[in-house]
Amino acid sequence: MGEEKSTLGITVKKNENFSDWYTQVVLKSGLADYAPVKGCMIFLPYGYAIWNNIRKVFTEMIEDEVDEVYFPIFIPKSILEKEAEHFEGFTPEVAWVTKGGKKDLDEWLAVRPTSETIMYSYFPKIIKSWRDLPLRIIQWVNVVRWETKATRLFFRSREFLWHEGHTCHATKEEADEEVIKRLKQYKKLLEEYLSIPVIDGYKSEGEKFRGALYTTTVEAMMPDGKALQSGTSHNLGQNFSKVFGIKFMDRDETHKYVWQTSWGLSTRVIGAMVAIHGDDNGLVIPPRIAPIQVIIIPIYYKEEHKKMITNKVKEIEKKLKENGIRAKSDTREEYTPGFKFNEWELKGIPLRIEVGPKDIEKSQVTIKRRDRTEKIAIKEVELLTRVHELLEDIQKSLYEKAKKFMESRIIRIDNYEKMKELADKGYFIEANHCGDVECEKAIDDETGLTIRVITFENSEPFGDKKCVRCGKPAKFKAYFAKSY
Amino acid sequence: MGEEKSTLGITVKKNENFSDWYTQVVLKSGLADYAPVKGCMIFLPYGYAIWNNIRKVFTEMIEDEVDEVYFPIFIPKSILEKEAEHFEGFTPEVAWVTKGGKKDLDEWLAVRPTSETIMYSYFPKIIKSWRDLPLRIIQWVNVVRWETKATRLFFRSREFLWHEGHTCHATKEEADEEVIKRLKQYKKLLEEYLSIPVIDGYKSEGEKFRGALYTTTVEAMMPDGKALQSGTSHNLGQNFSKVFGIKFMDRDETHKYVWQTSWGLSTRVIGAMVAIHGDDNGLVIPPRIAPIQVIIIPIYYKEEHKKMITNKVKEIEKKLKENGIRAKSDTREEYTPGFKFNEWELKGIPLRIEVGPKDIEKSQVTIKRRDRTEKIAIKEVELLTRVHELLEDIQKSLYEKAKKFMESRIIRIDNYEKMKELADKGYFIEANHCGDVECEKAIDDETGLTIRVITFENSEPFGDKKCVRCGKPAKFKAYFAKSY
Repeated sequence: MGEEKSTLGITVKKNENFSDWYTQVVLKSGLADYAPVKGCMIFLPYGYAIWNNIRKVFTEMIEDEVDEVYFPIFIPKSILEKEAEHFEGFTPEVAWVTKGGKKDLDEWLAVRPTSETIMYSYFPKIIKSWRDLPLRIIQWVNVVRWETKATRLFFRSREFLWHEGHTCHATKEEADEEVIKRLKQYKKLLEEYLSIPVIDGYKSEGEKFRGALYTTTVEAMMPDGKALQSGTSHNLGQNFSKVFGIKFMDRDETHKYVWQTSWGLSTRVIGAMVAIHGDDNGLVIPPRIAPIQVIIIPIYYKEEHKKMITNKVKEIEKKLKENGIRAKSDTREEYTPGFKFNEWELKGIPLRIEVGPKDIEKSQVTIKRRDRTEKIAIKEVELLTRVHELLEDIQKSLYEKAKKFMESRIIRIDNYEKMKELADKGYFIEANHCGDVECEKAIDDETGLTIRVITFENSEPFGDKKCVRCGKPAKFKAYFAKSY
Repeated sequence: MGEEKSTLGITVKKNENFSDWYTQVVLKSGLADYAPVKGCMIFLPYGYAIWNNIRKVFTEMIEDEVDEVYFPIFIPKSILEKEAEHFEGFTPEVAWVTKGGKKDLDEWLAVRPTSETIMYSYFPKIIKSWRDLPLRIIQWVNVVRWETKATRLFFRSREFLWHEGHTCHATKEEADEEVIKRLKQYKKLLEEYLSIPVIDGYKSEGEKFRGALYTTTVEAMMPDGKALQSGTSHNLGQNFSKVFGIKFMDRDETHKYVWQTSWGLSTRVIGAMVAIHGDDNGLVIPPRIAPIQVIIIPIYYKEEHKKMITNKVKEIEKKLKENGIRAKSDTREEYTPGFKFNEWELKGIPLRIEVGPKDIEKSQVTIKRRDRTEKIAIKEVELLTRVHELLEDIQKSLYEKAKKFMESRIIRIDNYEKMKELADKGYFIEANHCGDVECEKAIDDETGLTIRVITFENSEPFGDKKCVRCGKPAKFKAYFAKSY
């Protein structure tokens, strides 16, 4: 049977106009939409379900150690500006509440851009002794950054959803450990669940979180070769604890300031998933994170087959669900099988099962993977085993395809002229750098490239290498790229 | 062994100073705290875990029908004021964002007090045909009401958490059905999970949601005899759909406005749980909603017993957990058993298991219910069965105790003078009323009593009864009370 193209489908090709393709996929698959308020977006059921799955997966990774909380969305100006560098970093993009009811407020309230200051001004009340450490909390909330650039669904909007983790420790070493532990969990979440390969490492001085000792990041590569910061984990040192007076009585009976970390991951990873795995037919969702993993579609053209086939479809749905597979049957009668094929392909369901009269005759079903073009027949007795295998295989294939692409776009450069030439060509450029913030800024000005990540193994001075731009001794090797 | 009272415990009695008792219980049990921003509160891990459990329970009730979404927190003034009556109801308590970054906004943005307007201004984009109906969505979010009265943790704060459900239907009948279905689910959640008995029914004209056709409610009784509105479900009629132009092409090929409902339940139900079940030792949490259902405490005074007893405690913890019971062992060595008893009583854990040398000798454990004073010995072989039974019994006992209390504070009155006399005495007063809004308002002015709920069976005119105040023919029988 031909798979008729519907006008509801994607009308531009991914490799011809990536930006339009992306927007069409997000809108037409029902993930999200623009809101009636400028710069904001709506998370529709399908997109929100993916976010809920991400929440579930990450919660399982951390729940033995980290407690969920909720801190106010409003941060008084005086509290937000207490840590000067942090405030400077956020103030250009703060939304301010200045009126409550009919009255002008005595003090402006920031709508939460991030919660370090509101949380840390409270911590002295609950941290007194070494017994209260480590403290580890997380909240899954909305945050606001007053973007002035055009909205890009999931990637840039004035409000988005994220989680933010905040911890306090007795020593720097414990805080270091915490930073890396959460970063590795982000890497696992992205690579093993979202099938997105990432490079993990340090941010440079110029790119670190304002107010942090150092920042670590997981960077993904978009189809245009740009880098997407997909999660960050910061060691805040004692910067904030000194400002907010977060001290504890240690075992040696002296008072010490705590060492802190914060880490976060936002709904932009859904955008990354769309951009990386999607194709000209729409979304492709990695099975482990897919709200629907298997869609089952009855195929019949004679009324007399209807009951038999619908029963079989329902039976398969039930069987898959009982075995922990997120399956759904589409028995709507007002749509043709071809229409349904397109709709569920657009929505990126990993596996499609078709059941027609011939399938029943042969005690089989017909299966199509979202990431392949061919269909395969599978004996009903083997269905469960094969579905599990296929889902795992799709999960891995998506990752490997993305990984291969990323590797093909990484290039080693030692010559600044060459670097300038390639700046717009969509590469992760591996180059040595002196570590000087001014030099880093000059590269940005001259090429638009920024240091995205310094891998842990390349973060120490090494041999007699020179900085790609200024020629001074190199402090580290980094990946430079344009970024989202 | 004596259960030493710690200074960390509750220092006022519930029946002597309910208000102070309540605040102490919330703070000392670690449910929540006041925030560094006026009028707002912090949901601490223990309180948030209860909210998460409520979310989980309610999600299981509705997830086959209702999809989760997220709509923006900002609502442009022009959209919020489109439905005039609705706007009038909310405008005195709206927090306004008037600045973004350094710039004054062209249009003020309300921080979400509720989401009818922002959602409904979007609905015309996704509702076109009868095929798109019913539409049912829910979001679990923060909302802001600019309270001017003093903060009361969980009951009154400028920001709180809730869910709001919104649905669209083809006919009034379907919307009616939806309203009642969700209200009954609230009743189930409150009675069967939070052990809080409620009276369900209609709100009066004077008390209904601004902009609704009618409002239904579940009302609980607080220990002081006041009423707490614990969940509401509204039939919005076509009020909003006409304002926002939400039309669909029906099967008969004519365009019709949709019928809408909205319903919500907030974190104030946690406050109700604290107030109703708590006692002079602190919280008492109904088992089905308790983050920890069973706490296991090792009791030994000789070092030689430590290993044997700790092993047994861990073994019991593991066994209970494997059987779906939320158990936790407290093997901290820096605290005495007595200290632990008080701490976990304060936190309201339904069951405490003690394991001492004598228990091991006799292959038993010692169990104490949070809602009883005596301890009982249970044979280890029966542990699992008995723990399940006890948890269910505590769940039921708490409900029955609260129900008995409520019934003892309901009084039937036909005389307005008598009603005035009893107005401050903490009763739900059952009385006939004419249904006139002016008369309703007069009662409020003269007694401070408002109509809390009109039960469904008493909502129709009946016999030749007279209004308790004005003597005109009664339209219904209602419960009057003071309210939170």
